[in-house]
Amino acid sequence: MVATKLGVLAGSGPLPARIVQVCLAAGREVFVIAFENETDPKILENVPHMWVPRGKVGATIKRLKAEKCEEVVLAGPVRRPSFAKLKPDIRALKLLGRIRKAAGQGDDAILSLLVAELESENFRVVGADDLLSDVVAPGGIMGDHAPDDGERTDIELGARVAGALGALDVGQAVVVQQGVVLGVEAMEGTDALLKRCRALKREGRGGVLVKLKKPQQERRADLPTIGADTVRHAAEAGLRGIAVEEGQSLILDRGELIAEANRLGLFVVGIKV
Amino acid sequence: MVATKLGVLAGSGPLPARIVQVCLAAGREVFVIAFENETDPKILENVPHMWVPRGKVGATIKRLKAEKCEEVVLAGPVRRPSFAKLKPDIRALKLLGRIRKAAGQGDDAILSLLVAELESENFRVVGADDLLSDVVAPGGIMGDHAPDDGERTDIELGARVAGALGALDVGQAVVVQQGVVLGVEAMEGTDALLKRCRALKREGRGGVLVKLKKPQQERRADLPTIGADTVRHAAEAGLRGIAVEEGQSLILDRGELIAEANRLGLFVVGIKV
Repeated sequence: MVATKLGVLAGSGPLPARIVQVCLAAGREVFVIAFENETDPKILENVPHMWVPRGKVGATIKRLKAEKCEEVVLAGPVRRPSFAKLKPDIRALKLLGRIRKAAGQGDDAILSLLVAELESENFRVVGADDLLSDVVAPGGIMGDHAPDDGERTDIELGARVAGALGALDVGQAVVVQQGVVLGVEAMEGTDALLKRCRALKREGRGGVLVKLKKPQQERRADLPTIGADTVRHAAEAGLRGIAVEEGQSLILDRGELIAEANRLGLFVVGIKV
Repeated sequence: MVATKLGVLAGSGPLPARIVQVCLAAGREVFVIAFENETDPKILENVPHMWVPRGKVGATIKRLKAEKCEEVVLAGPVRRPSFAKLKPDIRALKLLGRIRKAAGQGDDAILSLLVAELESENFRVVGADDLLSDVVAPGGIMGDHAPDDGERTDIELGARVAGALGALDVGQAVVVQQGVVLGVEAMEGTDALLKRCRALKREGRGGVLVKLKKPQQERRADLPTIGADTVRHAAEAGLRGIAVEEGQSLILDRGELIAEANRLGLFVVGIKV
């Protein structure tokens, strides 16, 4: 079976570029839906695409149909715009009505609604992990370094905090050192969290980044992702390592990430939660 | 009854200065225990005090006894030092043993243990609100401005997130706008949280700071505190107002805070959670 053209809803971060690259290399056509302030314009060079304001759900669906995309992937985080900035079309208004009804819905709730909306239009919605091989985090130690007992305790605490935060659709990442939560991710993203923790880290050993899928999160939308850059930023923050969830997070360029972790003396571990 | 000399364990922020000022104005003697990187040295001018490394619990107790302090107040946050930096005396080692036993204990657990330790030495441990009149947050709207429906919904979400975070001893403050959690406080403190939210706030209305006591928090240690500065920082972050917990948070200089909130167009509200 020849794979049909893939619609890529391109959020921020390196994931959309990777998917486009892999598809084109395999001879598969793509069409990219790009979002202002989210999609990296560099990935669009020589790639068929349309810039879409985030409120234009109807226009997105119409174009994906016109492009004959049968399969769609949501790649990388797309933050919910403010209601003030949003100029929703009729389709988006329907979605917004459902969103506003449930008080305190975060980004994840919106992505789930978008997935449902796409499926109702007979698109097949797939996850980034369905398209990229070897991208799903394995369990156990990757690379040469392993967490010690104190770091394991910090990972447990970080997983508990990340679970509670994720259940409230707040964020995916937590930094813990010596039993103290240094920082918690909300809208600022993991890189900003790691940068801030440079100043918050205490003297002495330890410090771990724990990044987990939100418990109720739509699996095909915005799985927690780390790459070699995350390892470098964690090292710059003085941390000892990174824990992600086995089978529920994505690792870009695992070979490069592990080489970088080995070089910098950090552990990377896939845990069960 | 003449009040005996008051021992002030002086954390960061404006609370210790206020307590010292009020006591001295009333003719009550004080002795301040000052902590490096926490206590503002300015408050110690002409005030009897001793600088104590945070690991010296035995030395602290001995000095408070020598000074004949029968009553002690813990004023302002004292962050737990790193285990590496800590040079604990025997007394502190005993406490640390208890702390390490429970994995993932944050700052609050340590303050509770310190209160118990002081009480076991027959000190009377009081809260800042026992010493300062009119400092406890009232319920309802303070000042001229009130949250609208959207902001009330954001306050509810903020209170839910703050409750979950507090239960894990992570932090007290959360910023929410239009149903999205912009930022969550851990070690960086409320001022740094507000500063970061300047860049995270979306266009359009709304944005609230919710600051609550951790559910299990020792009432006499580090109750959530706001002052006129908090109002100014919230305004600089583009927020619409602040919610604190009725009866469970402290408001310094309520008159000045309300005047500042009125001037800047922010609401300040005491809520029940």
